[in-house]
Amino acid sequence: MDDTKSNQPLKGIFIGDFIHCRSLDDLEFLVDTAVCVDEKGWIVMVEREVSDQIKAKKILLPRLSWKEDEVIFKVACKGQFFFPGFIAPTDTHIHAPQYPNVGLFGKTSLLSWLENYTFPSEASLKDLDTARKVYTRCIQRSLSNGTTTAAYFATIDVSATNLLADICFANSQRAFIGRCCMDSAVNPITYRDASYETCLADTRATIDHIASIDPTNSLIMPIITPRFAPSCSTEAMNSLSFLQKETNLPVQTHISENRDEIALVKRLFPQHTTYAEIYDEHGLLCEKTILAHAVHLTEAEADLIKIRNCKISHCPISNSALGSGEARVRWLLKKGLEVGLGTDVSGGYSISILEAAKHALLVSRHVAMSGDEEAKLSVAEVLYLATRGGAKVVGLEKVGTFEVGMSWDSQLVGLATVGEDGAAPTWEDGKVDIFGWEGIEARLEKWLFNGDDRNTLAVWVQGRLVHSREG
Amino acid sequence: MDDTKSNQPLKGIFIGDFIHCRSLDDLEFLVDTAVCVDEKGWIVMVEREVSDQIKAKKILLPRLSWKEDEVIFKVACKGQFFFPGFIAPTDTHIHAPQYPNVGLFGKTSLLSWLENYTFPSEASLKDLDTARKVYTRCIQRSLSNGTTTAAYFATIDVSATNLLADICFANSQRAFIGRCCMDSAVNPITYRDASYETCLADTRATIDHIASIDPTNSLIMPIITPRFAPSCSTEAMNSLSFLQKETNLPVQTHISENRDEIALVKRLFPQHTTYAEIYDEHGLLCEKTILAHAVHLTEAEADLIKIRNCKISHCPISNSALGSGEARVRWLLKKGLEVGLGTDVSGGYSISILEAAKHALLVSRHVAMSGDEEAKLSVAEVLYLATRGGAKVVGLEKVGTFEVGMSWDSQLVGLATVGEDGAAPTWEDGKVDIFGWEGIEARLEKWLFNGDDRNTLAVWVQGRLVHSREG
Repeated sequence: MDDTKSNQPLKGIFIGDFIHCRSLDDLEFLVDTAVCVDEKGWIVMVEREVSDQIKAKKILLPRLSWKEDEVIFKVACKGQFFFPGFIAPTDTHIHAPQYPNVGLFGKTSLLSWLENYTFPSEASLKDLDTARKVYTRCIQRSLSNGTTTAAYFATIDVSATNLLADICFANSQRAFIGRCCMDSAVNPITYRDASYETCLADTRATIDHIASIDPTNSLIMPIITPRFAPSCSTEAMNSLSFLQKETNLPVQTHISENRDEIALVKRLFPQHTTYAEIYDEHGLLCEKTILAHAVHLTEAEADLIKIRNCKISHCPISNSALGSGEARVRWLLKKGLEVGLGTDVSGGYSISILEAAKHALLVSRHVAMSGDEEAKLSVAEVLYLATRGGAKVVGLEKVGTFEVGMSWDSQLVGLATVGEDGAAPTWEDGKVDIFGWEGIEARLEKWLFNGDDRNTLAVWVQGRLVHSREG
Repeated sequence: MDDTKSNQPLKGIFIGDFIHCRSLDDLEFLVDTAVCVDEKGWIVMVEREVSDQIKAKKILLPRLSWKEDEVIFKVACKGQFFFPGFIAPTDTHIHAPQYPNVGLFGKTSLLSWLENYTFPSEASLKDLDTARKVYTRCIQRSLSNGTTTAAYFATIDVSATNLLADICFANSQRAFIGRCCMDSAVNPITYRDASYETCLADTRATIDHIASIDPTNSLIMPIITPRFAPSCSTEAMNSLSFLQKETNLPVQTHISENRDEIALVKRLFPQHTTYAEIYDEHGLLCEKTILAHAVHLTEAEADLIKIRNCKISHCPISNSALGSGEARVRWLLKKGLEVGLGTDVSGGYSISILEAAKHALLVSRHVAMSGDEEAKLSVAEVLYLATRGGAKVVGLEKVGTFEVGMSWDSQLVGLATVGEDGAAPTWEDGKVDIFGWEGIEARLEKWLFNGDDRNTLAVWVQGRLVHSREG
C-alpha cells in the first residue's frame, strides 16, 4: 500500500467473507477467504479456507515471502463482508457542482430544471471558496458511500474544475474530471463558453493541469465533456472530436434523456435524423464514449451505439425523480452494450451508488409493468452494474472484482444483529436488521435495500484506506 | 403530559419552526412559533412570533395560567423543525410479523412472495420469544423513523397478536392491531384458521385483550382484519361484517394489488363481477374500512368505494418492489377518496413513512410517464398523505397537524450544516447536507429526499417522549 499520505504499512491481508460479481449473472460468495494486497495496492493472492489471522500468518506469509511486520491484517467480524468499491463506470455520471441541490427539483422536468436549479448553481462555483466547500463535501460523501471511482461533470470554469481534480487527488478518489463544454446560444448568456476556440483551449487547460498533478494518471484522468448536443456548436463538437483522437482520452455526454430534450435536439439539428447520429457525424461516438441516460433511444440509435462500441451510464434515480422515462436496461444489455450506473446528482437526489443500484432494480420493474417480464433486473445484476459493469464502461480493467491482478478498491460492509430483547441495534448501526437466520445472500439483499453509509465501515482505493467510520 | 411512565414534567412548550400540511395543497410554515401542550398531551395554544424561552415565559405562561416549574421547554436549534408524527393512516398497512424479511423478495411477485417468504415467516411467530424480538424491533424502528401511529396486520396467532398490542402499548406507539383472519383453502394447511367460527372467536379474543390493557383505547385499538378475499371463506367475511356492525371497529384488508391476484379472485368468486363487489356483498365496505393498494381498480370499483366512503392506503414502495403496478393516486384523490401511505412491510422494504412519501412522489411520476402529466404528486402532497391524509384514513381526527385541540404527536427534525471546509457533517448527522443558503421549504425538500432516522431527533405521542436520539 502507498504510505506517502498515511502511516499505513506496506502490504495488507484481508480476511473474511467477500462478495463480487464476475459477470452479469455470476455473483460469487468467497466465504472465509484471505485476499493479499501488495504495497502498490494490487491483489496478489486470493486464498479460500483461511478464516483467521493465525492461519493466514502460517500459510500465506511463507508463500508470499512476506515478513509479518510489513503486513497489516484486517479481519472482518461476523456479519461483515468485503465488497468491491463502487467504481467509476458505476458512477459515470455525477455532476459534482450540483451537489448542493440534491433533493431540490420541485415539479420541474429536465429543461426547466437546468434553467432553474442547475445553471445558477454551477455558475456560482466560479467562486473558489464555494467550489472548495461543495466539492470537498461531495467527494467525501461519495467516498463514505463506497464509491471508489467517479466520473465527474464539473463546470465551464477552468480553475474550479482543476480544483475538483486537486480535491479528488488529495482525497485519493479515482476520478475522471470533465470540464463542461457548452458554447451554443441554448446556454444562458451568463454561463457559456465564449467561443468554440475558448472551449477547446479551456478543455486543454484542465488536461494540462491534471498532467501536472498526476502525470501517470494513477488516480485522476481528464475526460472530454461536451455537455449535450444542444449545448454545443458544430465547431465545438468537431474540435472536441479531434482532441479525442489526438489524446485518446475518454468522452462523456448525455443522450436521449427526456422527450422535450429530444424535441429540442430535432429543432436545433434539423439536418440529422437522430440524436445519436448528431454525435456520430461529429466524430464523438467511439469505444471510449460514455453516454448518460439513453432512455428513449430508437432501435437504430442503439444499434449504431453498439457498432461504435460506446458505453451507457444508466441513471435510474433521475429517471424517476425528473420523470424522464424508464431506461430499458435489459434491452441495452441484450444488444451487447456495456452498462454502468450513474447517480446523476442532482437530477438524481442521492450520491449513493448503492441507492442507484436499488433504483435500477425498481425502475426495471416499472419497465416490466409495461409488459416485458424479462426486463426485471435481479439483485446480482444491479450490483454487477454498480461494480464490474461500471468498470467496463469507464474502461478500467483492473477494478471491480477480487481477483489476482486487480486493484484493492474495496469497501467493508457491516450489518448489525438484533439483540435477543429486540432493542439493539441503534441508529448508529444503520437501518439493516439482521436477526441471525440470514445467510450471506440474504445479508447482501438486505444491504442493497436498506443499507446506507452507516454500513460502509471502511473504503480503500488502490490499497489505501480513504474512508473509515472508525476515524 | 402523561408522567405515568417517565419523569417528564406535566406540560410542554415547544419553540422553533413548525411545518404541517393542513390540506392536500396547504403546506404551512410556522416560523418562530411556540406550541403549548397540556399535561394530557393536547395542544392548547399556538403562538406566532415567539422565538425564545424568555419571551415564551413572559408572554405565554401568564395567558395559560401555568407556573414555570410545571413546564418543560424544548427550543429547536437553528436548522431544525417540528413536523407532525407520521400517523396511523400514514402507516395504515404494515405487516409487523414480516419485518425480518425486509429487503428479501428476490424475483418474486405477490402470490409467490406470500408462499415463499411471508407465510413461513408469520407462522414462525407462534413462538412468543421470536415474536417479542421481532415486534419490539419493528416498533422501535417504526418510532425512530417518526411514525407515531401504525395500523398493523399481525398473524393468526392470538397470543402473538396480543403480545404485539402489549409491546405497542409499552412503547407508547398509537396502534391499530389486527389479528389476520384467513380460513380458506387458499392458505397453507399449516397456517390458516381452522374454521370461520374459530376465526371469529380468535378475533374476539384479541379485541377482549386490548380492552383489558387499554380500556379507553387511549393508544391501542383493535382492527378487524380479513387478510384479503382469497384468504377468507364467505362465512368468515359475513361474520366479520356482523362483528364490525356490533363493535363499530375499523376494518382493514387488501384490494387489487396485482394482476395475478385479481385473476385468482375471479376464479374463486365467479359469481361476483368485481373484487370490490365481493367485499361489498359481504358487508365489509364501510366508512371505517381501509383498503390497501387499490392499484388496478376499475372506474366502477373506485366509484363504489367512494359511495361506501372507504379509505385507501397507498403502498408505493411495494408497488415498485413487487412490480405490482402503479396506483393512480391523483385519480383516487380526484374522486374524493381519502388516501394515506402504508409501508407494506415486507412487500415494501422500508419501515419508514418518509421513504414511502418519497416513493409516492416517484411512483406518481411513473404514472405520469404513461401520459397523465397531472398524476405527479408534489412534495407537499406526499407529506400530506403521510400525516393528515393518513389520519383521515384511520379515522383519527386529533392528530396530524399543529392546531389547538390536536394531540402532540410530533417529531423534531434536525439537518446538519456543512462546515466551511466542507468536511462536516459526519455519518452521525445523516445524509442531508445543508449549505446555509436553503430556506425552510428547501430544507423540507432535502429532508424528504435524503432524510432518514438520523434526522428524527425526537418523537412524541400524546405529549409523551417516545424516542430520542439523545438517549
